[in-house]
Order: sequence, then C-alpha cells, then structure tokens
Amino acid sequence: MTRYRATIAYDGTGFLGFQRQASGRTVQGELENALERLGWSGRVVWGAGRTDTGVHAAGQVIAFDAEWRHGPEDLLRALNTHLPPDVVALGLDEAPEDFSPRRWAKSRRYRYAAYNSPHRHPLLDRYAWQVWPPMSIEALNAASERLLGQHDFAAFGTAPEPGGHTRRRVMRSEWTAEPSEWSPGGLLHFHIEADAFLYRMVRSLVGTLAPVGQGGLRPDAFSATLESRDRNRSGPAAPARGLCLMEVTY
Amino acid sequence: MTRYRATIAYDGTGFLGFQRQASGRTVQGELENALERLGWSGRVVWGAGRTDTGVHAAGQVIAFDAEWRHGPEDLLRALNTHLPPDVVALGLDEAPEDFSPRRWAKSRRYRYAAYNSPHRHPLLDRYAWQVWPPMSIEALNAASERLLGQHDFAAFGTAPEPGGHTRRRVMRSEWTAEPSEWSPGGLLHFHIEADAFLYRMVRSLVGTLAPVGQGGLRPDAFSATLESRDRNRSGPAAPARGLCLMEVTY
Repeated sequence: MTRYRATIAYDGTGFLGFQRQASGRTVQGELENALERLGWSGRVVWGAGRTDTGVHAAGQVIAFDAEWRHGPEDLLRALNTHLPPDVVALGLDEAPEDFSPRRWAKSRRYRYAAYNSPHRHPLLDRYAWQVWPPMSIEALNAASERLLGQHDFAAFGTAPEPGGHTRRRVMRSEWTAEPSEWSPGGLLHFHIEADAFLYRMVRSLVGTLAPVGQGGLRPDAFSATLESRDRNRSGPAAPARGLCLMEVTY
Repeated sequence: MTRYRATIAYDGTGFLGFQRQASGRTVQGELENALERLGWSGRVVWGAGRTDTGVHAAGQVIAFDAEWRHGPEDLLRALNTHLPPDVVALGLDEAPEDFSPRRWAKSRRYRYAAYNSPHRHPLLDRYAWQVWPPMSIEALNAASERLLGQHDFAAFGTAPEPGGHTRRRVMRSEWTAEPSEWSPGGLLHFHIEADAFLYRMVRSLVGTLAPVGQGGLRPDAFSATLESRDRNRSGPAAPARGLCLMEVTY
C-alpha cells in the first residue's frame, strides 16, 4: 500500500459538503466511489478541511492508501475519468506513509467573494454574494485587519470537535477589489488565512463585516464583537456560495 | 401603450437560447411569462440578438409594449420578482415608440472565455472553455487582428435570414489575459465587436483561432480561411458555455 496525496477542486453547489453523510451527495463520497471503480480496496479518503454544504474548493487536499502498479500521473488520469463534472483532481503524488492532510496542515486559506449591486446577477450568483447598499473596501479592511494574530474566535463559530478550544491564529485578513466585466461595481474578495478555522467561522466573519463595510457599524464595534466571545453578537452567516477553500499549506 | 427598453443578463446554461421555441425553456419565453404574471397584454418581447443554446448574456437588450401606471423603476422591480434566478433585468426605461433593439443596434460586443489547463476545472467550466496544449495570447492576437474592418465571413457562419449577405464590419478583435486565482494559467478573453454577427460566427472564429494560438497553425493560414469564404475550412465551433453577449450599442 502507498499513501497518495492529491489536490482537488470542486463546485460545492451540488454537495452536502465534503464529509460523507448517512445520505446525500458529498465530495468524500464521490472520491471514494471513483476510487472503488478503479478497484480500490482502501477504506476512506481523508480531507484537510470539512467544507460545509455549498462551499467550493480550488485547493482542497486529500489523502488515501492504495495499491497502484502504474505511476501517479496515470492514477490522476484514471481518477478524473471516474469523477463527476463538479469534482476534479488537479495534482497527485506519493506522500509519506503517515501523511495526514488535516493534522499536517500548517494553515488554510479561504476566499469569500461578494459584489455590490442593487440587482442579483445570474452570472455572478453561483460563486459570489450580492450586497446592497454597497460595501466600502476601506471600511472592510479597517475592521478585517483587527483579526490578525491570535484571538479567541468564539463569537464567530464553534470548535469542530466537542469541547475543543476556539483560539486561532490569523496570518492574512484582507479585502481586495477585482475588476469584473460582469459586475460594474467589481468583485470584492476577502482573503483569510489561519492555522485552522472554527465551524462557520469565515461566513460568520463576512456576515458581521458586511454592515461595517456598508457604514452602518464602526470597526470598533466589530472589535467589541470579537472580544465578547459571544456567539449571539455576531451577524448572520454570509451565504455558502461565496466561499471557497483556496489552499492548504504544509 | 408605452414601449420599454431593458438590459438583461442571463446564465445560458439552462436555456435553448434566447428565442422562443415550440417546446423547451427560452429566455424570451421566461420574459413573456414574467410580464404575463404582471397582467401584461402585449404579444411579444423583442431582443437585440438571438443567442444560441447555452450562450450567456451580460448586456442583452430587449423591448416590449406595455401599459403600466407606475414608474419604470417599479416595473423593473416587479419584472425581477417574477423572473427565474437565471435571468435578471439590470435596467429599464421608456423608449421611442418605434424602438427596435435589433434594427436600431449599431454594434454588438461578445466575449469568449477560455483557460489553458491540462485538467478540466469545475469552478471555471460553466463560463469558460478548457484548452490544452496552451494557447499563446501573442499568436492569438496576431491572427485575430486580421478580422478588423469589413470582410465576408462566409467561412465562419451563415446569415441569420435565408439568402442574407455574409459581410460584416469588425471594430474590435482582441484577446486579453485576466489573472484568476482559480486558473494558474489565467483566463483568456476574446473581445469581438461588430455591426452584426452571423449564426455561430464567434464560436466558429474561436474554434479556428485555437490551433493558431496553440502554434499548430500559422496566422497566414487563418487569413486564408477567412478569404476562402468556405464554411468547410473553418474549425469546429468552440463550446457555447464560453460565450457571452456583453453589450449592444445604439
């Protein structure tokens, strides 16, 4: 048996998230099904992050054990042949036999996409959140930079494991504006990188940042929410469709 | 009765094109259905361009006659309430009573999106065409600039009306590279603006330009295809999902 590591991308729209469920379509389930069609006798495909229902990924990392007589490039090709159109493996190689995509990860980077518009837009809505009145990128960044460093993020999510702590270290927290011919107001991207994330953390942060960006809440009020560690003080979570797991660093 | 003009956007994935068919879902059909739900007694919604099955639009222009007691902004809001998620009206105003979105149009601008990658990508495939081996933007532009000016485009499409001529005037024909965090090789956009287009013209041009961009065909061979006026000499049409009607100019 050899341990393999792969980088995968998926459109989360048609999935109940990464992790296999009792019923319903999941990314893990599709990966395991595709490997089984290749004669795989392994038991499980591990992932670096358990993305939620509807969340996308451009750089999720997975691992699995397999016996495979040909090279990794051949396995990559064979795997993609059996995966559905909304999941793809972009790269695959051999990994150390104790490699764990979750435990070995040094950081994860997510991107949240939003656009300022009074109208919904069919060409943007699959991968971005429509916000109106418009958000100012300066106001968003004035609040977002307060997330840098180590904080207790209990106000913005719950620990993935019962009783787990809620401290996380944030290395990047920044909004950028990207031009888009489809969106006259451009696209706003929130880039956040941390050692690990709480359940719902990015969407909860974006939902709480939005009124700051719109000018209805001051950056100081955002800091106060962070410091309160009170889950009831954060805003409603921003929709899943704007969120994408971009990269896992080892 | 007042004539109204609206700019609309749609995701073409779920449509058999703009124009109403005997059966199947069309953009024109959805627009007429939405207006009927508002008590509309008109007969038809006209469009500036009859986009093909699967082709998107960010700036299609339509017109219709209606009796409406409130302002255009109110009609815009009401129309959007009744349109499905994959069509939206972005703007609406009163037009001259003989306004025709098709006949009054001075030019149309289309954009075709492609990405260089050995792997399909679930987050790009809805709106762009995967091409491999990679295309060089310099080679694409060396050939594309030969389309500028007036030419007989018979090699790249057929006239929309039986017996119609196939001469068209091209004002812009240019590829640009856009960075994309989802596509390491970036996105390539072909921008083409002309007084009018033949049926399948943009997709046929892109399908014929692709081997030039990949280096397998010289720009001179592309010019020879244009000059041949022979439909059999052009390449297979590039897929509809990369194409978007961006703007109609009056």
